[in-house]
Amino acid sequence: MYSINDDTITALATASGAGAISVIRMSGKESFSIVDQIFKGAKKISECKTHTINYGRILDSESNTIDDVLVSVFKNPYSYTGEDSVEVSTHGSQIVIKKIISLLTSAGARLAEPGEFTKRAFLNGKIDLAQAEAVADVINARTEASLKGARNQLDGLLSQKIETLRTELVNSSSLIELELDFAEEDLEFLPSEKMISRIDEIVKEISTLLDTYNFGRIIRDGVNVALAGHTNVGKSSLLNYILKESRAIVSPIPGTTRDVIREDVSIDGILYRFYDTAGIRFTEDIVEREGVKRSRRSIEDADIILFIYDVVNGIDKKLLEEVYSLTEKDRVMIVANKSDLSDVKEKEDEIFISAKTGEGVDKLFEELNKKNLHTKTYSESSAVVSNIRHYAALQKAKEHLLKAKESLNMNMTGEFVSVDLRSSIDSLGEIIGTVTTDDILNNIFDNFCIGK
Amino acid sequence: MYSINDDTITALATASGAGAISVIRMSGKESFSIVDQIFKGAKKISECKTHTINYGRILDSESNTIDDVLVSVFKNPYSYTGEDSVEVSTHGSQIVIKKIISLLTSAGARLAEPGEFTKRAFLNGKIDLAQAEAVADVINARTEASLKGARNQLDGLLSQKIETLRTELVNSSSLIELELDFAEEDLEFLPSEKMISRIDEIVKEISTLLDTYNFGRIIRDGVNVALAGHTNVGKSSLLNYILKESRAIVSPIPGTTRDVIREDVSIDGILYRFYDTAGIRFTEDIVEREGVKRSRRSIEDADIILFIYDVVNGIDKKLLEEVYSLTEKDRVMIVANKSDLSDVKEKEDEIFISAKTGEGVDKLFEELNKKNLHTKTYSESSAVVSNIRHYAALQKAKEHLLKAKESLNMNMTGEFVSVDLRSSIDSLGEIIGTVTTDDILNNIFDNFCIGK
Repeated sequence: MYSINDDTITALATASGAGAISVIRMSGKESFSIVDQIFKGAKKISECKTHTINYGRILDSESNTIDDVLVSVFKNPYSYTGEDSVEVSTHGSQIVIKKIISLLTSAGARLAEPGEFTKRAFLNGKIDLAQAEAVADVINARTEASLKGARNQLDGLLSQKIETLRTELVNSSSLIELELDFAEEDLEFLPSEKMISRIDEIVKEISTLLDTYNFGRIIRDGVNVALAGHTNVGKSSLLNYILKESRAIVSPIPGTTRDVIREDVSIDGILYRFYDTAGIRFTEDIVEREGVKRSRRSIEDADIILFIYDVVNGIDKKLLEEVYSLTEKDRVMIVANKSDLSDVKEKEDEIFISAKTGEGVDKLFEELNKKNLHTKTYSESSAVVSNIRHYAALQKAKEHLLKAKESLNMNMTGEFVSVDLRSSIDSLGEIIGTVTTDDILNNIFDNFCIGK
Repeated sequence: MYSINDDTITALATASGAGAISVIRMSGKESFSIVDQIFKGAKKISECKTHTINYGRILDSESNTIDDVLVSVFKNPYSYTGEDSVEVSTHGSQIVIKKIISLLTSAGARLAEPGEFTKRAFLNGKIDLAQAEAVADVINARTEASLKGARNQLDGLLSQKIETLRTELVNSSSLIELELDFAEEDLEFLPSEKMISRIDEIVKEISTLLDTYNFGRIIRDGVNVALAGHTNVGKSSLLNYILKESRAIVSPIPGTTRDVIREDVSIDGILYRFYDTAGIRFTEDIVEREGVKRSRRSIEDADIILFIYDVVNGIDKKLLEEVYSLTEKDRVMIVANKSDLSDVKEKEDEIFISAKTGEGVDKLFEELNKKNLHTKTYSESSAVVSNIRHYAALQKAKEHLLKAKESLNMNMTGEFVSVDLRSSIDSLGEIIGTVTTDDILNNIFDNFCIGK
């Protein structure tokens, strides 16, 4: 379905910008002979041992020194990609990097596509597809929890679980196919009831995995929280209080468009993205319409909406209804602010806080955590699903299993059961890449950065 | 005057931001024992050979894997700093970097100050001071010419030249001091005329070096060109034409304040910074005053001012006089634009161009190059002075030599000659760092990035 490229690829592997050191990597059959065309050291790179660091100079075609560098040698299969690879460590200068990459491509290397090194690691069997995806998650991790989740997946916990389930299904499926082969003899290798109970077990395990997704998604991507309510009820004060208390402010990724004021905060290792829809009321005023659209969208997209009102002025039920109309009711948490200014008794299902004194804010976060991580907390050593591609594949696998079970219950012929078992096996295989297509691979690796 | 630090330093060595790989470096006596506290691989780093790459995991205090990494080992004296050093190559994740650096500092390393690795390389005698300065120049090089110049200095061409001159002076100075020791015997080890001719030779060589400074500064820092003239004479058109024709637009360094519109272009490897003082006339209008101030400053700071006028409307002599009053007259080049619209005959000392058709623009650049690089072009293999610190030290050395010569000519006692020769030797020594102070070192290394 896909072909392993025979050519040699190169790219800058470190972040661009000013730094002391930059690393240019190259992978493929010709890595050593290509670098030897422009490198002058004590000996040729092709004669160096694997996992050695070799000092020398990169020379241009007129023998001018471009830079003095360290070349790290990785011999097939002992490299990230599984191919012969080198890493050229240079001074962190834009012009040095440009020159060296241009010399390497002139000498026969090709510029790598995004994620191509990791793609090769996958194609060469160094890691499976779920692990390859985890590489990008490790790089993009912005909180401790997201790093742990990605690490867990990179270390193969999810892959092992999927592989176990898949193997069990393959075994069962083989027995059914064997029965089909011997259909005329009417042999039964596995009684229908036994098959059904096996399927039930696997469906249960898949359901457990599916249940981890909410948790997995949150530790990977964070929680979007919209702050809704009238102006002057204390939305900004609450946000400022949270930002001041949190020692782990996470700065937004450069280039993110800030349609709505957004602040990223890491609390207990979880990334919270607070969208302040401050000052934007649900109005038909033509000037405010664009703002209103954005506010509504923030609420629609939020995992949690904090509907804030001021206990002194009381709740605006009409505005609350508007918020309810935009989202699921149980995503909305009602927060009564300015508890310090009023003697109003706390109501059930509302959280009383004072954004001014900070009273109740801890409790607010407890409730936020409960709401988001409502599924039981998973131990760090169990498999967690955090990727929507994996979630979708698991759901497909489960559906096919339930269909297979139905066929068994209805005493339909083995062919029906077999087809669904195969589809379920393939769905699980898609997660770890035993079954894949160019489309799946392109979708995954196009989202990588160049150089990985 | 300075003390070699005994502690072990660490810093991120690659640019911050998203990348496939990041490198954290550490240098100092305890590098191996510190990394061994958090690293788990096939063997301990302290037992690994120099210039080897070792795969393993970085674990936190609870034995959680933070990342799987490659640790490069450099044993004293075979490292950049001359000390035991390691480079930890990690996944390029902000949170991974933060965690690992925090584990290293907990285990006994200290965060490195800017330029501290290079400072240690200097203090440990791996490179001299002029070479250390060239490291920063290599990293900051933005054009091929600036890279070549920095490379030339890093390779020690300037240092060798300075060292040769310094040694000659030390020898002569020793003879004079010997004479002083034997003053009562009235011995003459070196006749006065011989000494004078030696000094003349060295002064000549220093003058040659001083002459390279204009060229050296330009290849290192580029040329600032201010475009002056009335609105609508074609300043912007000329700039646009240059930008369009130049395939090597150099984007400005992020964070640069653009008080005046500035465009960086690399032409024949030289960086030109064009400051367009477009539309800002020399007026006392209160609203425009701030703009006028900036324009005047651009003209004052420029290496070259292109005074542009429109041949159809003719030159505004009053405005030209204003420009002359702000700078040296020979920095101003008069450019007559819209040659395509007029039959006016070309005047000497003016360059006729058409910003619209591009006619004459090549000639304009020829003249620009002549004006900037008016000293003879230096071969790439000769020493060039590009740093104002070096220029100032050379000038001081020259002044002291001329004073020594004067004393000789006036038949003053050897003490007078000796004092000036010593001062001259010290001035030369400051360039390469044989003589230095904490102030000099701090001034130099504070301008480095952290991690270098």
